[in-house]
Amino acid sequence: MRKSGATREVTWPLIRKAAIDLLYTHGFNVMNLRQLSGAAGLQAGSLYNYFDSKEDLLIRLITEILEEMLQQLDEAIAGVEDPVERINNIVEVLVIWHTKRRKETYIGHMEMRSLPEDHYKAYVALRDRFEKIFVTAVLAGSKAKVFQVTDPKIATVSALAMLTAISNWYRPNGKLSVRELIVIYQEMVLNLLGMQQAKAAAAAKSARRVGTAIA
Amino acid sequence: MRKSGATREVTWPLIRKAAIDLLYTHGFNVMNLRQLSGAAGLQAGSLYNYFDSKEDLLIRLITEILEEMLQQLDEAIAGVEDPVERINNIVEVLVIWHTKRRKETYIGHMEMRSLPEDHYKAYVALRDRFEKIFVTAVLAGSKAKVFQVTDPKIATVSALAMLTAISNWYRPNGKLSVRELIVIYQEMVLNLLGMQQAKAAAAAKSARRVGTAIA
Repeated sequence: MRKSGATREVTWPLIRKAAIDLLYTHGFNVMNLRQLSGAAGLQAGSLYNYFDSKEDLLIRLITEILEEMLQQLDEAIAGVEDPVERINNIVEVLVIWHTKRRKETYIGHMEMRSLPEDHYKAYVALRDRFEKIFVTAVLAGSKAKVFQVTDPKIATVSALAMLTAISNWYRPNGKLSVRELIVIYQEMVLNLLGMQQAKAAAAAKSARRVGTAIA
Repeated sequence: MRKSGATREVTWPLIRKAAIDLLYTHGFNVMNLRQLSGAAGLQAGSLYNYFDSKEDLLIRLITEILEEMLQQLDEAIAGVEDPVERINNIVEVLVIWHTKRRKETYIGHMEMRSLPEDHYKAYVALRDRFEKIFVTAVLAGSKAKVFQVTDPKIATVSALAMLTAISNWYRPNGKLSVRELIVIYQEMVLNLLGMQQAKAAAAAKSARRVGTAIA
């Protein structure tokens, strides 16, 4: 029987954090549930109150990560009509995720291959929504002749790949702040989208949301 | 005792091809040497004439892949002074690799984590040479005021991430030819580097090497 209520609310985040650390360090195939219970300070058997198998755990983690990211993206573009501002807001959300929560995004990217077939499809559907948010902004900007993009779909996967790669190299004690990185990536993405004077626009727009977003 | 000479020259490419297919489909942790000997049409025991362990096989494959790619990059920029042309040539080599040899590049990217510690360092040293070739061209273009880049190192890892991601989505029966993709990526990378009129330049330059390169 699964626990619910207060215990669940306290314990699941502990398990989640420990699982993310282990998956990040060892990968799905190497990590085992004994390590996980040890790291979370629980009895091995009690993990099964929270998920049915290692695979089930991975599905839950990856789904939670993607859904939370999607929710933030939806919020970041809600009511925003200007395509440049929309791209800047999306880039901001993704830079924050790939710096502040880089272990989670790294797992979301590297371990999707460990998902069972049917869940892999659900994952791909979530990724597609992700890409759709971005490509919609790119197409709006192309239509408004703000962006010059030969292939909006390829430009989208390219911009997302750039942003995803942050979690490969970023370290919290590096010389650039998250705020500085946001501006650099906004500029690069707008450049990539063939915007003239992307630099000035990025700098100007970026000041808007930052600060509230980096808590 | 390891075989050498003729047998080796014929058999290693067979093993290599089978290993790349299996690693691409199943990943390093899941793939086993019994599958490999079956796929290569060899007795299981005879694999050990070619490598000592599954790990040893992975090291050899990844090193060969990176070294061959580096050699092609070195050739592509040898004697090329113009930074735009140098970037275009590098992009061309990488688009060809990530389309024509996408399984190999995917493995090089996804399985480096399965390398043992000391070999991981050797891998990183090869990756660093890779990045250095690119960043040197970016810096030359910045100095000549052809490119406008806020952070050359971040622009480099971003451009490489874009190109690496091709192997995630590219399928040989897709609507775009490799030649068309080269031009699209040359344009995007030059845009990313903040080049004005990147479009025209990319189109003009791209015609030079293509054709000989796609054999």
